[in-house]
Amino acid sequence: MVKILARYFPILSWGQEYNKASLISDGLAAVIVTIMLIPQSLAYALLAGLPAEMGLYASMLPLVAYGIFGTSRTLSVGPVAVVSLMTASAVGQIASSGDVSYMAAAMLLALMSGFFLLAMGLLKAGFLANFLSHPVIAGFITASGIIIAFSQLKHILGVNAQGENLLQLLISLFSQLQYTNLSTLAVGLPVLVFLFWVRSGLKALLLTLGMTEFSASMLAKTGPVVGVIATSVAAYGFELGNQGVALVGQVPVGLPELQLPAMDNPAWKHLLISAIFISIIGFVESVSVGHTLAAKRRQKISPDQELIGLGAANIASSLSGGYPVTGGFARSVVNFDAGAVTPAAGIFTAVGIALAAIFFTPYLAYLPTATLAATIIVAVLSLVDFSILKKTWSYAKSDFIAVTTTLLVTLIFGVEIGVACGVFASLALHLYKTSKPHMAVIGEVPGTEHFRNIHRHKVITHSDILSLRIDESLYFANASYIEDRIYALLEQQPKVKHVVLMCTAVNEIDLSALEALESINMRLTDSDIKLHLSEIKGPVMDMLERTHFLSKLSGEVFLSHHLAVSKLADSPRQTQPLNWEI
Amino acid sequence: MVKILARYFPILSWGQEYNKASLISDGLAAVIVTIMLIPQSLAYALLAGLPAEMGLYASMLPLVAYGIFGTSRTLSVGPVAVVSLMTASAVGQIASSGDVSYMAAAMLLALMSGFFLLAMGLLKAGFLANFLSHPVIAGFITASGIIIAFSQLKHILGVNAQGENLLQLLISLFSQLQYTNLSTLAVGLPVLVFLFWVRSGLKALLLTLGMTEFSASMLAKTGPVVGVIATSVAAYGFELGNQGVALVGQVPVGLPELQLPAMDNPAWKHLLISAIFISIIGFVESVSVGHTLAAKRRQKISPDQELIGLGAANIASSLSGGYPVTGGFARSVVNFDAGAVTPAAGIFTAVGIALAAIFFTPYLAYLPTATLAATIIVAVLSLVDFSILKKTWSYAKSDFIAVTTTLLVTLIFGVEIGVACGVFASLALHLYKTSKPHMAVIGEVPGTEHFRNIHRHKVITHSDILSLRIDESLYFANASYIEDRIYALLEQQPKVKHVVLMCTAVNEIDLSALEALESINMRLTDSDIKLHLSEIKGPVMDMLERTHFLSKLSGEVFLSHHLAVSKLADSPRQTQPLNWEI
Repeated sequence: MVKILARYFPILSWGQEYNKASLISDGLAAVIVTIMLIPQSLAYALLAGLPAEMGLYASMLPLVAYGIFGTSRTLSVGPVAVVSLMTASAVGQIASSGDVSYMAAAMLLALMSGFFLLAMGLLKAGFLANFLSHPVIAGFITASGIIIAFSQLKHILGVNAQGENLLQLLISLFSQLQYTNLSTLAVGLPVLVFLFWVRSGLKALLLTLGMTEFSASMLAKTGPVVGVIATSVAAYGFELGNQGVALVGQVPVGLPELQLPAMDNPAWKHLLISAIFISIIGFVESVSVGHTLAAKRRQKISPDQELIGLGAANIASSLSGGYPVTGGFARSVVNFDAGAVTPAAGIFTAVGIALAAIFFTPYLAYLPTATLAATIIVAVLSLVDFSILKKTWSYAKSDFIAVTTTLLVTLIFGVEIGVACGVFASLALHLYKTSKPHMAVIGEVPGTEHFRNIHRHKVITHSDILSLRIDESLYFANASYIEDRIYALLEQQPKVKHVVLMCTAVNEIDLSALEALESINMRLTDSDIKLHLSEIKGPVMDMLERTHFLSKLSGEVFLSHHLAVSKLADSPRQTQPLNWEI
Repeated sequence: MVKILARYFPILSWGQEYNKASLISDGLAAVIVTIMLIPQSLAYALLAGLPAEMGLYASMLPLVAYGIFGTSRTLSVGPVAVVSLMTASAVGQIASSGDVSYMAAAMLLALMSGFFLLAMGLLKAGFLANFLSHPVIAGFITASGIIIAFSQLKHILGVNAQGENLLQLLISLFSQLQYTNLSTLAVGLPVLVFLFWVRSGLKALLLTLGMTEFSASMLAKTGPVVGVIATSVAAYGFELGNQGVALVGQVPVGLPELQLPAMDNPAWKHLLISAIFISIIGFVESVSVGHTLAAKRRQKISPDQELIGLGAANIASSLSGGYPVTGGFARSVVNFDAGAVTPAAGIFTAVGIALAAIFFTPYLAYLPTATLAATIIVAVLSLVDFSILKKTWSYAKSDFIAVTTTLLVTLIFGVEIGVACGVFASLALHLYKTSKPHMAVIGEVPGTEHFRNIHRHKVITHSDILSLRIDESLYFANASYIEDRIYALLEQQPKVKHVVLMCTAVNEIDLSALEALESINMRLTDSDIKLHLSEIKGPVMDMLERTHFLSKLSGEVFLSHHLAVSKLADSPRQTQPLNWEI
């Protein structure tokens, strides 16, 4: 009973071992993450088209909910770039940014995503995320990074560019270039350069100044906060608001009210598909970060329980005025590096953000949005990585096609269609390959009982036996292809009296393939050729034994291919195989 | 050049060998098929909701076109039951049966289907049809048979029943039962009983009367013609038309005018999906019949050229006032049994139908539609075969799910959605199985170099080696599953120093799986366990050699698993394997 409870409430297992040392480690990590998270939460809310405070709200209760239900010790949950972009794109279809209905739709989206994740977790459907291949994930993350970066440029320039896709966005940005607000640019550009430098050069500088690796690394993470403070002070001092510089403006002080989103909101039908996409993509991002960090400390995460944790976090976000959240890469790494040892670090971070919401929000009025845009641009450009193109091109063209499909379609049509096309392309390519499987005529490697491809190895064969290895499970998509290939092979060599199919790679024979085998057996029998099978695996043999196929088979089933050839060979061994064209 | 021409115009190859013997055989077959085809053409036009003459038109030029471009020697092309049903359902969405726009849409559908088939043939995309598994085909054919049979009952009862799906149709039929036209029933029921008897008992009777097998079989095929003549005479004699019995009525005499369907018909957008489905299903039906008949005479058909042949037939049908056609099962078998030796039999049949259209159409005015409905019902009920349910249930549950999905969805929502769901279900089940592959811990079968599952065979193992056979290609959908399983296995036995993955069933390692292997290798290295691979196939090894993986691999790559174990074993051979829970 306690064990089952602990499986669904991981807090019960790590909570028991909690001690003073954990408290200190988690507390320190929480302080660092809080400092990093404040500007990030505000920035991602901007990216999602939401008021700044919703970013803060999404960084409180969701962290507590994940702390109770999540299995990763160090994952940091909250608003992230890709999910914020997807939220903007989903909600933007049915409402205008700034409207009350826009905010309500974002909260509803979080609720729907939360329930979807929860349901997937309870149904143990976490394995579905495996169908997003690495190339697809890499493709959509790079494309998202590019889209996000360009979508934020308008805030740096102080212009009003719009676009449904990257091309429209670029054209709009270009046409608006002449209206650039120089005061805004004077704020945005220096922050952008500063943040790039913080990310690339500051840590090295601090190290040469004699700081420890840990301190240098953590201090470098506070760059955005410095940018926020400096530009807010500048905006206040120089009254930049009067010069056309967009500021965050009045933000409600204090904690969010808890409330259920309007369940009768008819928007839910329009948001359903997006909620599913956001859930799956958020889950994949979160689980891959969780796996990586857990592996570093020899810990484990449970994907199905992670779904429940993220589901709870999203429901909590929705109830407390937030929008869809997930486990973010950058923040989780900071949490991990800062020494977090349990999910309590996340709960402490939530407290930190709550304190900030109470005491610091009045000062946000003077914060230029250009500063937040610069924070986003620097953060997402680190996601852009084209090396996957080169890697997949040299390794496997099918992976390359999956990457480029995802990348291009995402850039042109958006994340949802991009990911859907990427998954479809990967699956279609996989099925295509299995529908035209590799086959090899094989012979015995001298001195062993091992059989290999006659075209790759020096092997011994017999002219009256066709030893054929089929490198795929036999199923409907390849059944008639394999049948045709076997007939075509036999036409090459009329002397053959035995065909032995080596079934080491045959993990399944479905009904369509069974019928193909029956028809091969009949046709070979008509031509006085016997059909044999070797090395059939247990589960496949179990299935064949439930049919009449084995009793109709003209030949035998052999435990190993060596036994088959030893028994059947009636012609001399030859080291020069027949000239099979396969 | 001649060879290429002959590939696209098979008539050039069989035409050269044509002689008097072929002429006699083909001529006789054509006479028999013509007699069988006249009532069938009229009946299927009725099923498609089209005037009777369009059934005849669809049985002339299409046969000539297929005779020129098709590769099957005996396939008989023309209107068939399933395609007629699909035509009715597609065209019924945009026009009312009886309207000129309904006929125009049916002709346009044939044109679109023809161009689609032609394009698939030129692109050599015939393999796509392999993705329709036998269970899916069996499911949709049985369901179509049921739908068609019930849809024709109203003509036997003389009532006006309607329904979008089977349930609605049954309810409508039941509520109309009280309005049954007894005169119509008095025609329809006897014909129905007569045709059932012709199919089931006549041939046996003729055989006992001393007739030869061939004559008895052929004579039994003329049953529908007898029914047509008898009921037409009765309708004329008893003036059944005045008693509410629906008759075919005036049919235009003579040959169809050749004309291009209106290309600017805006209906094409609504028909596009249906045209694709009709093309694919027609192709699958045609090719499976063609394969079966060709195999009986050791002939071959070329699926890609068949696409061109069927494409040409559909375009011809469209230009000559017909509707979508394909190679039919029943008629092709009759053609084959009647002794047809070349596609010339089809061309002669077209001439026969043309003569009928010129000389017999005036007599069709008195033909009761109930007779045609009875012809359809008897023909399609032979398609209904539930034995596939039992067969798949006992053989493989995944095939059973594919059949039942297709069957039920087709019955409830129609053929197009049914087939789409069936294909989706088969592919999803296949992918699901490959995403959680079978794995076996293996040991050496004593006295051989052959390795098998420790739980199924008495084998020899070593306590410091985990020999693992993964029964699937490694790809994104199963990469992390396999990774987790390997870690879980290793936790069971801390003594293991070597993990050897036997890769006989690994036909592919994609990028996602390669990354999983790299991470397994790193994690095992941390625990002082070496990772080895054995029996990697040539094509997979080629790919691995293009990466850094092999240089990072802590262990080795062995040609055979026997060599791996011989070299690595450092502990005594044991016949009692470790207690691996897999």
